[in-house]
Amino acid sequence: MFEIKSKDNMGRVGVLKTKHGNVKTPALMPVIHPRKQAIDVGKYGADIVITNAYLIYKDENLKQKAIDEGLHKLINFDGPIMTDSGSFQLSVYGDVEITNREVIEFQELIKTDIGTSLDIPTAPFVERQKAEEDLEITLKRAREAVDYKKEKNMEMLLNSVVQGSTFLDLRRKCASELSKLDADLYPIGAVVPLMESYHYKDLVDVVMNSMSELADDRPRHLMGAGHPMIFALCVAMGCDLFDSAAYILYAEDDRLLSVRGTYKLENLTEMPCSCEVCSKYTPDDLRAMSKEQRRDLIAQHNLYVSFAELRLIRQAIYEGSLMELVEERCRAHPALLEAVRHLGNYSEDLEKYNPRSKKSAFFYTGPESLYRSEVIRHMQKLRQMPKKKNLVILPPNRKPYSKFFSGKLGDFYIYGDEKDCDLENTDFMVLDIPFGLIPLEIDELYPLSQNDAPKIHDVDSIEFMEDFIYEFIEYYDQVLIHYKVNDNLELGLLNKYSKSDEIRYVKNDISKIKAIADYQFGFGAGEALFSGNINIEKSKKTGKIRHIYDGKVLIVNMRASDSFLILSKEGAKRLHNAMNYPQNRVVVNKDAEPFALDGKSVFCKFVTDCDDNIRSNDEVLIVNEEDKLLGYGKTLLGSCEIKEFDSGQAVKTRKGMKK
Amino acid sequence: MFEIKSKDNMGRVGVLKTKHGNVKTPALMPVIHPRKQAIDVGKYGADIVITNAYLIYKDENLKQKAIDEGLHKLINFDGPIMTDSGSFQLSVYGDVEITNREVIEFQELIKTDIGTSLDIPTAPFVERQKAEEDLEITLKRAREAVDYKKEKNMEMLLNSVVQGSTFLDLRRKCASELSKLDADLYPIGAVVPLMESYHYKDLVDVVMNSMSELADDRPRHLMGAGHPMIFALCVAMGCDLFDSAAYILYAEDDRLLSVRGTYKLENLTEMPCSCEVCSKYTPDDLRAMSKEQRRDLIAQHNLYVSFAELRLIRQAIYEGSLMELVEERCRAHPALLEAVRHLGNYSEDLEKYNPRSKKSAFFYTGPESLYRSEVIRHMQKLRQMPKKKNLVILPPNRKPYSKFFSGKLGDFYIYGDEKDCDLENTDFMVLDIPFGLIPLEIDELYPLSQNDAPKIHDVDSIEFMEDFIYEFIEYYDQVLIHYKVNDNLELGLLNKYSKSDEIRYVKNDISKIKAIADYQFGFGAGEALFSGNINIEKSKKTGKIRHIYDGKVLIVNMRASDSFLILSKEGAKRLHNAMNYPQNRVVVNKDAEPFALDGKSVFCKFVTDCDDNIRSNDEVLIVNEEDKLLGYGKTLLGSCEIKEFDSGQAVKTRKGMKK
Repeated sequence: MFEIKSKDNMGRVGVLKTKHGNVKTPALMPVIHPRKQAIDVGKYGADIVITNAYLIYKDENLKQKAIDEGLHKLINFDGPIMTDSGSFQLSVYGDVEITNREVIEFQELIKTDIGTSLDIPTAPFVERQKAEEDLEITLKRAREAVDYKKEKNMEMLLNSVVQGSTFLDLRRKCASELSKLDADLYPIGAVVPLMESYHYKDLVDVVMNSMSELADDRPRHLMGAGHPMIFALCVAMGCDLFDSAAYILYAEDDRLLSVRGTYKLENLTEMPCSCEVCSKYTPDDLRAMSKEQRRDLIAQHNLYVSFAELRLIRQAIYEGSLMELVEERCRAHPALLEAVRHLGNYSEDLEKYNPRSKKSAFFYTGPESLYRSEVIRHMQKLRQMPKKKNLVILPPNRKPYSKFFSGKLGDFYIYGDEKDCDLENTDFMVLDIPFGLIPLEIDELYPLSQNDAPKIHDVDSIEFMEDFIYEFIEYYDQVLIHYKVNDNLELGLLNKYSKSDEIRYVKNDISKIKAIADYQFGFGAGEALFSGNINIEKSKKTGKIRHIYDGKVLIVNMRASDSFLILSKEGAKRLHNAMNYPQNRVVVNKDAEPFALDGKSVFCKFVTDCDDNIRSNDEVLIVNEEDKLLGYGKTLLGSCEIKEFDSGQAVKTRKGMKK
Repeated sequence: MFEIKSKDNMGRVGVLKTKHGNVKTPALMPVIHPRKQAIDVGKYGADIVITNAYLIYKDENLKQKAIDEGLHKLINFDGPIMTDSGSFQLSVYGDVEITNREVIEFQELIKTDIGTSLDIPTAPFVERQKAEEDLEITLKRAREAVDYKKEKNMEMLLNSVVQGSTFLDLRRKCASELSKLDADLYPIGAVVPLMESYHYKDLVDVVMNSMSELADDRPRHLMGAGHPMIFALCVAMGCDLFDSAAYILYAEDDRLLSVRGTYKLENLTEMPCSCEVCSKYTPDDLRAMSKEQRRDLIAQHNLYVSFAELRLIRQAIYEGSLMELVEERCRAHPALLEAVRHLGNYSEDLEKYNPRSKKSAFFYTGPESLYRSEVIRHMQKLRQMPKKKNLVILPPNRKPYSKFFSGKLGDFYIYGDEKDCDLENTDFMVLDIPFGLIPLEIDELYPLSQNDAPKIHDVDSIEFMEDFIYEFIEYYDQVLIHYKVNDNLELGLLNKYSKSDEIRYVKNDISKIKAIADYQFGFGAGEALFSGNINIEKSKKTGKIRHIYDGKVLIVNMRASDSFLILSKEGAKRLHNAMNYPQNRVVVNKDAEPFALDGKSVFCKFVTDCDDNIRSNDEVLIVNEEDKLLGYGKTLLGSCEIKEFDSGQAVKTRKGMKK
């Protein structure tokens, strides 16, 4: 029903399968008015639409036509259609003339693709008691709907809406309860007032708390969200579907949507985008038109920019640059920037879903970037890493740093008292933004070289580097700090190291590959993988390590783009021997065993367990429940998702052990 | 020849008049290849194009056709055409087969609209001697071209190119020398290598140093700049024209331009914008096409996005949100962010050109925003302001702050020893981002209330506020700091003020209007304007001050949108009496005197002097050279421009003193 094609942070490109066709997500469902629709939204890019079943139900003519000819004929759209129940009307008028069962039954009857139960939209910032009472009803009706669908063997997919107002524990509770039901999609409801009042920070709390408990294998729909300004942020938090009447409501009011906010036609001297409407007409042209003609053209513009933004977001997910897009888009309004800053508090949640390697480089766009999950992840790894006796801290040069350090490095200051520095027992690290300290041995690993930041630092960056130094000096016997680092950060160290001339960074390929293996697979992996008669083959063109053998037996390949190690059969065996269960493992049940042994890919439904540290694009071992090695491959999802999904691939197997 | 319509920082919307029509600037001139042009650029938004006179000259067929039928027929474009000389070829091949005089003569002969002398493009980072030698030739040829044009009474407009490599003093010298000549446009040359290598910070230096000496009344053209990613930044620095073959060169290489950078078609899964091409085709569609068809469509996309960006930039200038756009665009690449941070060092230059009041609010987008010229300007004003004995520092609440402070304000801490606080002799200020300290009496003035910043502060903002406090406590006898300010900034003050209950902000309309007048017109203006039987009329709807009278005689109106004071005849007289020459004055010569007295607008060419502090949109006095008051009105340009321009309006006169 729903499959993930590509991921970035909690954002995903997916495919939602319905009986009227597939929809690529993230997607926007324009609201179609069943009686007075003027715009053919399919013409401007809509693959799926939403309309209101209750409005149809309430109108005798529409109702009869929908029952006789079906919903798709009624609104003249032959792709997938979602229907809302009367919840919106309920929230506005306080009452509706339909029961939960009736609206479920009616939606199935008119052949909607996705129907919705009659939830209670609870506004933000209400009294807690109100929110709790509403939530009870919402949950009861969601359960009733799922049961009723099963009982009547209905064809339509079913929405179960997350409510709970701005009480985050209620949102989590609701999401958790709904995830136990067999609903097909999860809308997150009653967030429109937050967006209308620029409470984007609260929106982040509501969405992230809902997401934390929602099953990952179903699409999530941010109800009523239709302003392209917030799409990127909401996708990064895990939203797959948006719906909105904004395109036409704004058009009726002479307002143009944009990723930069909203433009009132009366304030425009120039048209603000590259779409057909903006390229063909001037604001004066539009102002001179009839109300209706103008409304249609502005609605077209609104649809063009909304669908363009969703294409750009999907492209960003494919490249792995979604957060760069989010951090760019948030400059449209200080409240959005505040929301993105607030999202930094959820970095550990985002990290769980974030692939370890991406096609595009990490761009630092401002202090917010220091809280991205790539940074948090590196900091965690660095803290866990076994430390040598001494630490040498170097200033950044060109990347990869390790390539450009040789010979005499310049003067060093000592942190603490001078002792003799045993270079053999010394970690060499570069201090830089955004990754703090980068050990030279692993600096070619994504994203430690594949990143860029302005050379003019903001104070957050400077404090970030200082904090790193003050934390790391505690882990070492002696710390030598390069004079440039001392000068730039104004550390005020006065004690020069007397033997600075002797400090050299000596490249050692064996140490390097071991360090990379430890960083990638966990500490101990390096020793285990690279024992015996180690033989390193490098690219003649670039000088980079490509293949690593024990004698003539291949252990691993090193991928040029991100320096990640790709296991061979021998490498997989060694890793399996050395690392304890469940490290680096995806565990499959008996049924899947022969397929895995044969080198066939592993599907989620056969996975019984997996290492919590696994992220998508990781190189992993495939084992059975007795930890017998069956094969090895590359994950397509993270551990959270692998455990939850019932359909789709979990691991693209490189090789089965049988072969 | 060139008129300014609207301004924001150093960016301007202007009109360039040529014999083939007017061009709205900032504009992009697509490069037309005289022999093999495939794209009809006019169809996709080009109002002006550029082509190469030397290439035409070198090809016997083209040359003859151009001489016989004219350039416009030759390249099939009937709008304005600029021609480049052989400078580019000179820089690539080291030599050209044409002299400066010949190329000037030829360009006039083929009826170009704007011709160019044969300058020497000196690459960035060359030896100083080379740059100096080249510059001598460039200047000699520029002078020769101007003289030759005059001698032959040529019709075409003439470019004089600023060179000087990356030596900023040479750029300034060149710009200064050229400004003395009677050339019509100033291209800034040899910057392409800086842009290609992402040396945007150096580009800022080169452009800002050239601009500082270039005459303001001529369009400036950033030669070879054609990537929409940098348009906003360059416009904010004063560039009016861009030219580029990028649209077609990138298209030939399957690369799509975007304000976010460049997309390679091979990496695209989705089309990245809202243009006709991106809405109609998928990347797969394009990949399946013939090379030529694909190139044409990508070139169209490239033109659509480039012209859309220029429209958006012009719109941003009209609204006064150009810097918000620049700060958004710079997230496309860390080197661009670095450039914008570096531009903060030129804030005082930008300030001179920046209107004092704008239609749109000031949005804080990151630490860069603290260096915007609005902030620098407020800091200057605040430092000059006469101080009372005590200072009370309050935390921000809703804006305008003064509206929401009443009654007991909460606890205060004392900076220094406790003394009795005379509330009559106390300045009340709010501490907030981005304006630091905002005196409550003037907080309704643009942009002190018309701004927004995220509530989650970066460390630059926190230090900025702390610096304000530490500076301002020095100016006062006693400083009381609200407990929230003390807590938020962790100032660590322990000494509570014992009479906190007595601290109240008492609104006083008379103090308020005097403070506003002092802030707007200079200190002393308040006392001078508001003497006599002051009578304040407020809006019944909003409660805001609208009109201020002495008895029944109107002195000023207060504009609702930005709280600026608009002088009446009486107000103008009082201001003129009180403030010394040349404060608040635009001085016109004898010829203009009767017109000004009659209330006719003042044209730049009649202005002989003006107050250096005048910015566009200021309310000013119009006087003759004996300082006789002739009228009063609103400036359309800043003092720098008023002094330099020979055409166009300087002041839109509200009233002449005769009437």
